[in-house]
This record gives sequence, C-alpha cells and structure tokens, in this order.
Amino acid sequence: MDPYGLRRVVAPAGVLPQRAERLDPSLPLGEDELAIAVEALNVDAASFRQIEGAVGREPAAIGAEIARLVAASGKLHNPVTGSGGMLLGRVAAVGPRHPAAGTLAPGDRIATLVSLTLTPLRLDRILAVHPERDRVDCQGQAILFASGLWARLPADLPEALVLAALDVCGAPALVLRTLVPGMRVLVLGAGKAGALVAAAAREAQGGRGWVVAADRSRAALDDLRRIGAVDDALEVDATDAVGTMERLRRCGPPFDLVVNACSVPGTELSAILAARDGGSVIFFSMATSFTAAALGAEGVGKDVTMLVGNGFVPGHAELTLDLLRRLPRLRALFEQRYVR
Amino acid sequence: MDPYGLRRVVAPAGVLPQRAERLDPSLPLGEDELAIAVEALNVDAASFRQIEGAVGREPAAIGAEIARLVAASGKLHNPVTGSGGMLLGRVAAVGPRHPAAGTLAPGDRIATLVSLTLTPLRLDRILAVHPERDRVDCQGQAILFASGLWARLPADLPEALVLAALDVCGAPALVLRTLVPGMRVLVLGAGKAGALVAAAAREAQGGRGWVVAADRSRAALDDLRRIGAVDDALEVDATDAVGTMERLRRCGPPFDLVVNACSVPGTELSAILAARDGGSVIFFSMATSFTAAALGAEGVGKDVTMLVGNGFVPGHAELTLDLLRRLPRLRALFEQRYVR
Repeated sequence: MDPYGLRRVVAPAGVLPQRAERLDPSLPLGEDELAIAVEALNVDAASFRQIEGAVGREPAAIGAEIARLVAASGKLHNPVTGSGGMLLGRVAAVGPRHPAAGTLAPGDRIATLVSLTLTPLRLDRILAVHPERDRVDCQGQAILFASGLWARLPADLPEALVLAALDVCGAPALVLRTLVPGMRVLVLGAGKAGALVAAAAREAQGGRGWVVAADRSRAALDDLRRIGAVDDALEVDATDAVGTMERLRRCGPPFDLVVNACSVPGTELSAILAARDGGSVIFFSMATSFTAAALGAEGVGKDVTMLVGNGFVPGHAELTLDLLRRLPRLRALFEQRYVR
Repeated sequence: MDPYGLRRVVAPAGVLPQRAERLDPSLPLGEDELAIAVEALNVDAASFRQIEGAVGREPAAIGAEIARLVAASGKLHNPVTGSGGMLLGRVAAVGPRHPAAGTLAPGDRIATLVSLTLTPLRLDRILAVHPERDRVDCQGQAILFASGLWARLPADLPEALVLAALDVCGAPALVLRTLVPGMRVLVLGAGKAGALVAAAAREAQGGRGWVVAADRSRAALDDLRRIGAVDDALEVDATDAVGTMERLRRCGPPFDLVVNACSVPGTELSAILAARDGGSVIFFSMATSFTAAALGAEGVGKDVTMLVGNGFVPGHAELTLDLLRRLPRLRALFEQRYVR
C-alpha cells in the first residue's frame, strides 16, 4: 500500500509527489490506485496567466506549452507559479484496494479535489483551450492515490457551477464544524468562499445568532444581502485594521467567530481584532501570513483561537453541492457569477 | 480609552503602532497607559545580528545604532529584519484606568511580553551592550498600552532564566489548553519551546498517554530524555517528510496532537502526516508557511485541525515560570542552556 504515491516519484528520490520534479504516470495501476480518462484540465488561474504571459494568448501556443510541461514532469506543475489546478474525467479503472472500490465504477464522471501538482498525468491530445475559463479540453490519463480526494459530478447541476463550488468547498464545511447556533459570525470577503460561508452559516443558525459580511465591494455585499445570506453587510477595507475596527465597533459587540475569506494580503489583524476574547478566527485566504497572524494576536494581547483553513473536511464536496441545491438564491448567484 | 495605542502613532496616520514608522513616546501618560523606567532591552536575535553586520561588532557602535533607530522612530523596530525584542524595567507610573492599576505599583520590576516594534520608547543613555546576550543595558522610558502584555519578574528565579522562558511561554500554555490526558503527543523540535512543551505535556498526562520528541539533534533529544520530559525520543529530519513518516510509522499509531516547534522552514507536512485523522497540529514555528500547511493537508487528504500558535494565552507567563519551579530537572536544563 502506498497512499501518498511514493512509487510514482522518479526524481528526486524519496520526496512526496508534490515536491517531485518528475512523476511516472505510466506504471501499471497499483491495487490502491484509481485511473481516470481525462476530459479537461481546470488550470489554476495564476498558472494560466503566467503561461499566457510567456507564450502569448494564442490557444494553440498555450496548449502546446501545457503539453510540454506535462510531458516533462508527468504532472501539471507550473514551475513559475508553483500551482496546478484540478481535472475532470471518467473513471477508467479502480484498483481493488483503493478506498473508492465499490463506490466508483468505470465510466463515472468525477473531478479531482487534489492539486494537479501532485497528480500523475499523461496527455495524449489537446482538443481545445478556453482561456476565458482557464480550461483545457483534452484526452489523457491521470492517477489518483488512495489519499487523493475526488468528487462525483452530479447530473442535476451545471458543470461550471459544480467546479466553482468545489474549488472552495472546504470553507463552508470547516465553518459549520466550528459554528454553534446563536453565535455572532463575521465573514471577511464576499467572494466565492465568503458567499458560501455566509449562506451556510446563516442557514445553520436557524434564525438565531447574527451573520455579517464585510467587503470593500458594495456590489458583492449587495449580492449577499439580496440572497438572504447575511443579517448585515458592511463596506470596509480589511487591509485597514484601524478603519475596520472602528466600523465594526459601531455595529455591536465583537464576534464569536470570524472567517477570513479575503483574497488580498494584510487582513490578518482586522480579523483578529474583530473577534471577542476567547473567540475564533478561521483563515481561508491563501494570502494569509502565518507570522502576521501569530504575532498580530500577541501584539494586541488577544486570546483568540486561530485555525488554518484546511481545504479538506470529510464530506465537504457533497455538503457544498447540497447547499446550492437547498438554497436556490445562492445557486442563482453562483450561476450568474461563475456560469457563462 | 485607547487600548491599542493609536494616540501614540505619529506617521503614517491611522495605522496601528506596529505598522507605524514613528511613535511619540513623550506624550503625557494616558489614563489607560503604564510607564516603565527601562533598564535593559533584549533585542531580537535576528535584529542584533543584522545590526552587527551593518556597523561591526564594537559594542559602542552597536549601542549608537540602536540609539539612532529608537530616536528616529520612537520604538525599536529594525527596518531590515522587521523585528524588535522585549524590555525589562521598573514600573514608573500606572494610569488609573490601565488594567494593571491595583496590581502593579511604581518600583515593581517587569518584562514586556509585546514586541518592541509596537512599544513607544525613549532612550536617555546606553550603559552597556552585551552582544553575547543580545542585550543592551540602558536608561529610558517606555509606554505599555492597556492591551500590552507584561510579566512581573520573580525574585526566586535568575533573570536570564525568566527571560528565556518568557520568550516562548505561549507554547506550553496553548498546548495544555488542547491536551487531553491520555493523548499520544508528538513534539517536533527539542529546542527551547519544544523542551517546555514536552515537559508540560508529560506532566499533564500524569503517567497516561505518550509524549515523543523528534529532532535532528541527538544531543537535544538526550537532554529531554535525561530530564524525564519524554517517553520516547526520535532522531529525524522533519524537513524530510517521507523519512520522518517512515520513522514515525515504526514507533506506533499516528498522534492525537502534534506540536511543531521547529526552527527551520519546510516541516509542515511532517507534522501533518504524523497526526491521526481527526487529530490536531499546533504550529509554533515562525518559519511556518501558511500555504504549505493548508495545501499540504488537502494534498494528502488529511482531516486535521491546524492551529496557528498564538503567542498569548491568559496566564501563560506564570504557567511557564511555575513549570520551571515545579520541575527542577527542566529548570536545570534551562539554566545550563540559557543562563551563563
């Protein structure tokens, strides 16, 4: 058994697949592995922009560069941005000792929820490149290890909607694990993750508690207000800790739970100062600085439990898709924002 | 009331003291402030080395440079390293609305537990510079805000011992808050924070559970074994996630609680892989990368609760000093390592 795919690492020897320079996607399928007939790559946005910058915006050139990267390393791991993406495809084979044996069958459509930077991948043919969606339609084969996360693509939701939601599905799941109904909850950032978190939190409160979203975009806040995802919405710039603190102070006591879903750096202290003593902050922003959070809380003498937003919580994909199914106004917002 | 010291910020306007370029240490004492007659600065090690590199190792030159930095900005905030340090002194005055009013009196000796990068400071005279201890004996005045942490210097423990322990006192306090007796606990890193955490955890277990320390220094591990702070000690290089995983696998089931107290970067995945599903990891290392932790856990599909090690937990200083008082072998190790 090899749950982390060490057998696939070619070089350097002895590292985990994400740190490897080269993986071998061509081995016979291990009995705890799963093979996917790849249909499309959803390339990380930062990686896609870097590739466009390097080879130009011509789809054929972008496709050739992606094929070159995958051929060279056996995975899609942009060496400049360090990022990958996720993929869509149909199950080709399930090893008898893979955890999905008995659950998935050949032909099932799934999306991977682990990064392409650690997924063994062989590309046979590029079919189309869609720069406006950071997407590459292709044929190829990928391998999932026993530890690799995946989600079945449901038949009742548009694929683009599903992908947009799965991208951040860890956030609402982890927040619901922490939330106790009746809490005062602040969501910093009203983007994709913030919208899901606010909607999930408000629903879980069941009419108790209080859910506030804060963002510098009035339009994003109006969206959340319109779909009933928040009790209140505040226009603030979370990179301005003093301004944010003063604005929040005027709207009631400090918060039991603060969720940082901002997409810009420098918002750690706003989140920390918004929480009550003994409260919690969950950081989902990839722009979070560990030291800014750790030293920031100490610097203001705030006893607050700070969680690193783990992208994986068991059941997170289904939980998030069910949220979109149950809340038609949330689904309509996601379709308007992310499905073209 | 101004618990975060906004009134002391000269420039730029509207930021918190840590982000300010200049503070005013000379205002009349606010009624929620505390004034300290400074006796010594304990300069952050990285900052001290940078200053030595810039002006040479002559104590007078180092002292002049520190005096220049403080005169220019009203605090000790090394612009290259971004770090400060802490200070020692006697209480000069306590504002009637400061939280320590009634607890501290003029003449009491205290150490500040908030960074010098946010502490208004005026230096009147440099008395001596001790490069071997990153210390500057001096006369001056500093201001503590209502939110600023401090600890009374006890009469029964050597000052150098107290300072070494206070430097990392948040770590054992936060670990004890998370620990449930009977847990399997792994401490990565057998340095100052790791030693305190291991000793505190083993004592709290009361003979149940299991405490393991792992480090690449055999000498540091032998120290912990000798003082009875661990049940087992393993020589591993935590930057090698695969090697660490294989070594740990041979010593029993995964851990309920992993404490990362390493001083080098690249150890996040070793900590994550060592924890059981549903377990916890607390990151105290200032070398922790937020994204390496968040994406690392997702990449290996590990459901683990990850905490940012907040340097402040109420009562942390007293808890740590009491640990040294109760555990004579721990105290002896600290005196041997950190008191000359």
